[in-house]
Amino acid sequence: MFFFKLFIFLSFVSSSFSHETLLPRPLIIQYPEGIETQIHEFDEELKLQCTSWRFSAEANNLSPWKMIPEECLGYIKDYMTGRGYKMDLERVSNEAGVYAQSLELSGDGKDVWIFDIDETLLSNLPYYVEHGYGLEIFDPIEFDKWIQRGMAPAIEPSLQLYEKVLDLGFKVFLLTGRSEQHRSITIENLIKAGFRSWDKLILRDGEHQGKLATVFKSEKRSEMVEEGYRILGNSGDQWSDLLGAATSSRSFKLPNPMYYIP
Amino acid sequence: MFFFKLFIFLSFVSSSFSHETLLPRPLIIQYPEGIETQIHEFDEELKLQCTSWRFSAEANNLSPWKMIPEECLGYIKDYMTGRGYKMDLERVSNEAGVYAQSLELSGDGKDVWIFDIDETLLSNLPYYVEHGYGLEIFDPIEFDKWIQRGMAPAIEPSLQLYEKVLDLGFKVFLLTGRSEQHRSITIENLIKAGFRSWDKLILRDGEHQGKLATVFKSEKRSEMVEEGYRILGNSGDQWSDLLGAATSSRSFKLPNPMYYIP
Repeated sequence: MFFFKLFIFLSFVSSSFSHETLLPRPLIIQYPEGIETQIHEFDEELKLQCTSWRFSAEANNLSPWKMIPEECLGYIKDYMTGRGYKMDLERVSNEAGVYAQSLELSGDGKDVWIFDIDETLLSNLPYYVEHGYGLEIFDPIEFDKWIQRGMAPAIEPSLQLYEKVLDLGFKVFLLTGRSEQHRSITIENLIKAGFRSWDKLILRDGEHQGKLATVFKSEKRSEMVEEGYRILGNSGDQWSDLLGAATSSRSFKLPNPMYYIP
Repeated sequence: MFFFKLFIFLSFVSSSFSHETLLPRPLIIQYPEGIETQIHEFDEELKLQCTSWRFSAEANNLSPWKMIPEECLGYIKDYMTGRGYKMDLERVSNEAGVYAQSLELSGDGKDVWIFDIDETLLSNLPYYVEHGYGLEIFDPIEFDKWIQRGMAPAIEPSLQLYEKVLDLGFKVFLLTGRSEQHRSITIENLIKAGFRSWDKLILRDGEHQGKLATVFKSEKRSEMVEEGYRILGNSGDQWSDLLGAATSSRSFKLPNPMYYIP
């Protein structure tokens, strides 16, 4: 990692001392003084820039984006595989749990918590580790193969929240952009990962193919409201899980700096 | 700053070697080996925790909060007075500008951009520097005195966006939680800071005192829509500026880790 940074750094500064190149070249390369400090500063600057990018993604300030900024690959890899992502997942799960517990449910079976699936209940991180953490353009065929394996692990803090809201007496509705074709493998994967006893699993059918996720999910939430359900909580990693019509009393945005679904 | 961290760190670890205290005490205090590394690790851990807290605040995952976490005071001070805050402000202003420019306005004078005022157009950072960066419980009397001075500086990236949307032909509506009593000093402050030519300045009148900001601002936006305006952009540092009824086609959340308005 250090040598990679050194390489990047030297590519940046090479032009500034290229005029000093003389023939015959000396056998010992003299780096400019304080190069370690400069590399450190470059590193801190990149971290600042990528943190700023991640904030604007999480606060929904960015235009629809197709891939992460190239220079942030290392940053996002570190975040996703290090403690940052885990800590953020735990925090959002805890906040949601405290909120869920604070509510008095009516007891008529109409109080609902909605969960998205991918990057909310199930993690596709094993796939993205092999596919550039969002730097590669999304490949639906490759991703489909991964889904078909049914091997996505649970996001543990979400599993804890899931069990908590079930215990509290919420109806749990799963609302996902996955296609109806994936119903059986999705059920299999969910059960394998420890999820049980949901009340509805809503996938995209033919009628809703091609619609923006925001539109599809808004329509489905509106139907719930028409059926008399009260949507009290909603957990999703995309703003398209949470915004639009018939929004939840409170929404919980799980972190996801790898991809964007409009 | 180093000594402050050393102090905090020593308070944490003191219990682990207090049993070694013997009388008479030695004149030279021996710190445990690798203390610098441990302080560095403690520092990194705190940074990670406070970044995680800031994310959950910016993504609207937290329950209403009255003050920042005590242990994050140093982190938030560094963020607010360092490059992080400035960079985030510039990024959200640029994103909003690109979006504004991408729109084709109708030319009928009904296309609107809404701006909040405090921590959106005008900065109260000089006040918060003197009042613990959000660690002190909000003091309305002290804050009122600061407002009455009319000295809040412009948030420069917001001023640039403001001028851009005016140039593009948007109607600019300012929608603020400030009270009607502050109308003239607010106008004076805005003009002094470089803001001009807004089309409406909406403050809280008696009828709207005591309402949540989300409710007050939703009502005002709904009135705009009833009057035939199209709300195409909305910039605010609080989610209560952006969510609720008659929301904007796109909203831009400016950073603010210092206070929360429900």
